[in-house]
Amino acid sequence: MPVDPAADIEVTAYGWVPDMARGRVKDCRIRWALEEIGLPYRVRLVGGAGGGGGVKSPEHLADQPFGQVPVYKEGGLTLFESGAILLHIGAKDARLLPREDGARARAIGWAFAALNSIEPFAQMLFVMGWLADGKPWQDEAGDLVRPFLETRLAQLSVALGGREWLDGRFTIGDLLMVDVLRAQAPPALVAAHPNLADYVARGTARPAFRAAHAAQLADFRDVA
Amino acid sequence: MPVDPAADIEVTAYGWVPDMARGRVKDCRIRWALEEIGLPYRVRLVGGAGGGGGVKSPEHLADQPFGQVPVYKEGGLTLFESGAILLHIGAKDARLLPREDGARARAIGWAFAALNSIEPFAQMLFVMGWLADGKPWQDEAGDLVRPFLETRLAQLSVALGGREWLDGRFTIGDLLMVDVLRAQAPPALVAAHPNLADYVARGTARPAFRAAHAAQLADFRDVA
Ligand SMILES: N[C@@H](CCC(=O)N[C@@H](CS)C(=O)NCC(=O)O)C(=O)O
Ligand SMILES: N[C@@H](CCC(=O)N[C@@H](CS)C(=O)NCC(=O)O)C(=O)O
Repeated sequence: MPVDPAADIEVTAYGWVPDMARGRVKDCRIRWALEEIGLPYRVRLVGGAGGGGGVKSPEHLADQPFGQVPVYKEGGLTLFESGAILLHIGAKDARLLPREDGARARAIGWAFAALNSIEPFAQMLFVMGWLADGKPWQDEAGDLVRPFLETRLAQLSVALGGREWLDGRFTIGDLLMVDVLRAQAPPALVAAHPNLADYVARGTARPAFRAAHAAQLADFRDVA
Repeated sequence: MPVDPAADIEVTAYGWVPDMARGRVKDCRIRWALEEIGLPYRVRLVGGAGGGGGVKSPEHLADQPFGQVPVYKEGGLTLFESGAILLHIGAKDARLLPREDGARARAIGWAFAALNSIEPFAQMLFVMGWLADGKPWQDEAGDLVRPFLETRLAQLSVALGGREWLDGRFTIGDLLMVDVLRAQAPPALVAAHPNLADYVARGTARPAFRAAHAAQLADFRDVA
């Protein structure tokens, strides 16, 4: 049972976010990895009623300079950046990160691909949609930005081909890629590539993902 | 002398890019790391006269699914994503990546921060500037997007404070952060924070950076 108030490992999450963000906050990736290897963790909730982008206490900023979640603590180590946290957890267990040098390097390659080649373009589309909302140039801007993500998804679909996972077996590279695709990319753009849609379905069907996702949802408190 | 046609390690770079991109292509980061530890590498140039975003041969797409550079080869290993390549090189030498678990994890944290918390916002500003060029909403869009990067740079400036490097001593986290700041962010936004400007000056004054930068420039061929 990974969530355990007495655990050594602490994961920071939000106690409140708007409905549309629930289940998609990036502590989910960390919980997922810990669930995959059965490593217990405790949760520290930050953010007041403003939740997500709101209150940033000095303590939280000392742990995470951009005032975001997740933060990971273990013994004397405080770590931020979901990618780095996943590499740190992956190093504990070959089920997440292969021990063999080449396979390990390639898994790390896919982790960076998720975070530097896919997520930024999904985020750019989301941010522009939000900034341009209601402006006369909203549709024009969306049509200009969307192809960047569409191109990456088409290339990723070719790279995955008919394989189950990106490099033969499930690794943190897949965990991150599935998490980016399911939580950051518009579902219709992913669905345009049946093999990517199946890949996401395969990842999110894993018991460890389901447990992590449910645990994040269970931690949100409704505020009046 | 790191550039050596007989070296084991191969780094892929472009043989031509437009003037404004010269010195900023991401193989520079890889050359820099190899120069820091004196590891020889050979260069494979890809892209025709179209350079950068142009021709993507099937061979290149097999190595790098997004058709980009850098690609890194060593023995039987083919690796893409500059972040993953730097971690792989870093693992060879404690001057790039500390051996102690905590320090190593934090250095990797800064590498991900460079690539997932700073670079995407610099890139978003650049891409929007380019997509909106000449549109009536160009200035409005720029003014909406710029604060994302400005906020990150202000937070990074606080995190760096008066220190020389982000976690006490130079690591691949600094190498990547300096490279992102110098090559991807508008200089005026960095210059707004004197400690960040000094940090970039310190990084780019390193002999290994200078050698890497000069080597990239030396590989561009002018085409008629
Ligand atoms: N690069 C960071 C990004 C973390 C991130 O985007 N966190 C979001 C939640 S999913 C957040 O805290 N947003 C609130 C804010 O930016 O103020 C990581 O991968 O850990
Ligand atoms: N996430 C990749 C990004 C690589 C990248 O952006 N490469 C650029 C050159 S700096 C490129 O090849 N651009 C041409 C294109 O995208 O077609 C990495 O870090 O290696």
